Amino acid sequence: MRGLHLADGVCSLRDDLDAPITNPGETRVRVRLAGVCATDLALQAGYMEFRGVPGHEFVGTALDGPLAGRRVVGEINAGCGECELCRAGDPRHCARRSVLGILGRPGAFAEELSLPSANLLPVPDAVSDDLAVFTEPLAAAFQVLDGLDLSGVRQALVVGDGRLGLLCAQVLLDAGLNVDLAGRHPERIELFERRPSFLRGAFEHDATPPHERWDLIVEATGRPEVLPVVLEAIRPRGTIILKTTAATAATLDLAPLVIKEARLVGSRCGRFAPAIAALADGRIRPEALIDARYPLERGPDALAHAARPGVLKVLIEMTSSETDR
Amino acid sequence: MRGLHLADGVCSLRDDLDAPITNPGETRVRVRLAGVCATDLALQAGYMEFRGVPGHEFVGTALDGPLAGRRVVGEINAGCGECELCRAGDPRHCARRSVLGILGRPGAFAEELSLPSANLLPVPDAVSDDLAVFTEPLAAAFQVLDGLDLSGVRQALVVGDGRLGLLCAQVLLDAGLNVDLAGRHPERIELFERRPSFLRGAFEHDATPPHERWDLIVEATGRPEVLPVVLEAIRPRGTIILKTTAATAATLDLAPLVIKEARLVGSRCGRFAPAIAALADGRIRPEALIDARYPLERGPDALAHAARPGVLKVLIEMTSSETDR
Repeated sequence: MRGLHLADGVCSLRDDLDAPITNPGETRVRVRLAGVCATDLALQAGYMEFRGVPGHEFVGTALDGPLAGRRVVGEINAGCGECELCRAGDPRHCARRSVLGILGRPGAFAEELSLPSANLLPVPDAVSDDLAVFTEPLAAAFQVLDGLDLSGVRQALVVGDGRLGLLCAQVLLDAGLNVDLAGRHPERIELFERRPSFLRGAFEHDATPPHERWDLIVEATGRPEVLPVVLEAIRPRGTIILKTTAATAATLDLAPLVIKEARLVGSRCGRFAPAIAALADGRIRPEALIDARYPLERGPDALAHAARPGVLKVLIEMTSSETDR
Repeated sequence: MRGLHLADGVCSLRDDLDAPITNPGETRVRVRLAGVCATDLALQAGYMEFRGVPGHEFVGTALDGPLAGRRVVGEINAGCGECELCRAGDPRHCARRSVLGILGRPGAFAEELSLPSANLLPVPDAVSDDLAVFTEPLAAAFQVLDGLDLSGVRQALVVGDGRLGLLCAQVLLDAGLNVDLAGRHPERIELFERRPSFLRGAFEHDATPPHERWDLIVEATGRPEVLPVVLEAIRPRGTIILKTTAATAATLDLAPLVIKEARLVGSRCGRFAPAIAALADGRIRPEALIDARYPLERGPDALAHAARPGVLKVLIEMTSSETDR
């Protein structure tokens, strides 16, 4: 089959890829539309020493299994099914998990992929492919609410107005919070109907950081130099959520975390159901984030486009190759 | 009055100290017994640029106010009483707070101190001075349980077998958890009736860190190089509690926190009531931690003794000066 392949920092289009192996309990999916994520760009740059087909944001059509013939999206972590975590319903942290397009499982930038059937959710008719392809990043944004007590949150802040930061801000607004968004692109708040307040440059390198202004801060820049500023800006007993794994090691003094008795919470992928529900009833409308579309044949150009500064979501369309089947 | 005074790294005994100012709503307390804490040693070494009377672990006798004549212990943070945090019952994080013997308020290594009357709690007769002087550090240890869901904690770990680590281990045992204690002094687990399992050297510099073995880890060493090992050792979705502010800035890669969706929680002082209750009914018996006693006149020696490696609790007795009154 045809697909994109990453090796040694190079992304190439190949038409000789093996169709993905479909183990018992798994479903073959024909990919319809896929989205490029910062993680894909990090993989190309060497993260996880990845080789293979990247891509983990997709909407497709199930070719077999319980949802055969239906449009589906899929949670990307596939657990071993046997360990303590998997048996407790948490394959997302299974030590032997594979992750679609990231770890041990070919990804969505190809004509077909496979996932455990239990990972797939049907897409309601009201949700177009353009919306459904945002399910995975929107689920990651919804994960910021996981285990969070919102009753004490008077003012929330999202640092970073990139793809993930904008979705996180929308999720917090949808949860009824007062939300500030700090970034470099004030025009981006116009991409949404419900708009956060915009703070320009407040978390840049040489800015004087706001002191103890927020009860909840979502760090969505991946720039490690932002963390000391965030530790200054969080209120006592507040919660800081770290949304990106791309951050490199940095020098950090955690004494403010202790003195304020604040908490720093790692947050990664999320459950799909709340994301699909928010897309289906129109509470969150991320289509405005789409900056470009490329056919699979121009996939390497799609990744290069997504890597340009200031670009939001780039999509890869698989439909053009359907006539080849 | 007589007391210890810190200035420019030197601890001296002085007999010309002003009696502490007692503002409206505050109580004068005659100190009976005080304990030396790592924070006192850090203050002597320059932390907070402190000058004045140190000391914040004490049991004393109220000289006026609602508890006049009774033995008391006292919570050490005194809020402004007017800000949003104070009005919500949290003077511990008031931005304008004073802290006994640490920030803007003379401390307990003197014949008298003053605190807001609301900060004082009476000591039950069943609790001796030797026990009551542990109320503040034990309350700090109880604070690790604050907001913690213990239902998912199968195995807990305390890293550090110093004064604070030993108390934290006892609190976690008292809460019914399985507790491991990592440190350098296996003989110390014999100081208590209920004993944790001991891990020797597992968190030293060149050790191979245990991988994802604990749901809850309390970091009580204050050595920043321990944190990367702790991030390796915590289970997915586990909680790491940081108990010391003494840690200096260190290079840290927080990607494991995000990938595991773990949380790092700062924890400082705690409420006194649970600590007094545990001392009163004998559930926690910290007297075995007492390594030495000094009269106030030898206070500088007491601090020097407490600073020696391997020393646990050093007490300063004020009673010898009572005859001077």
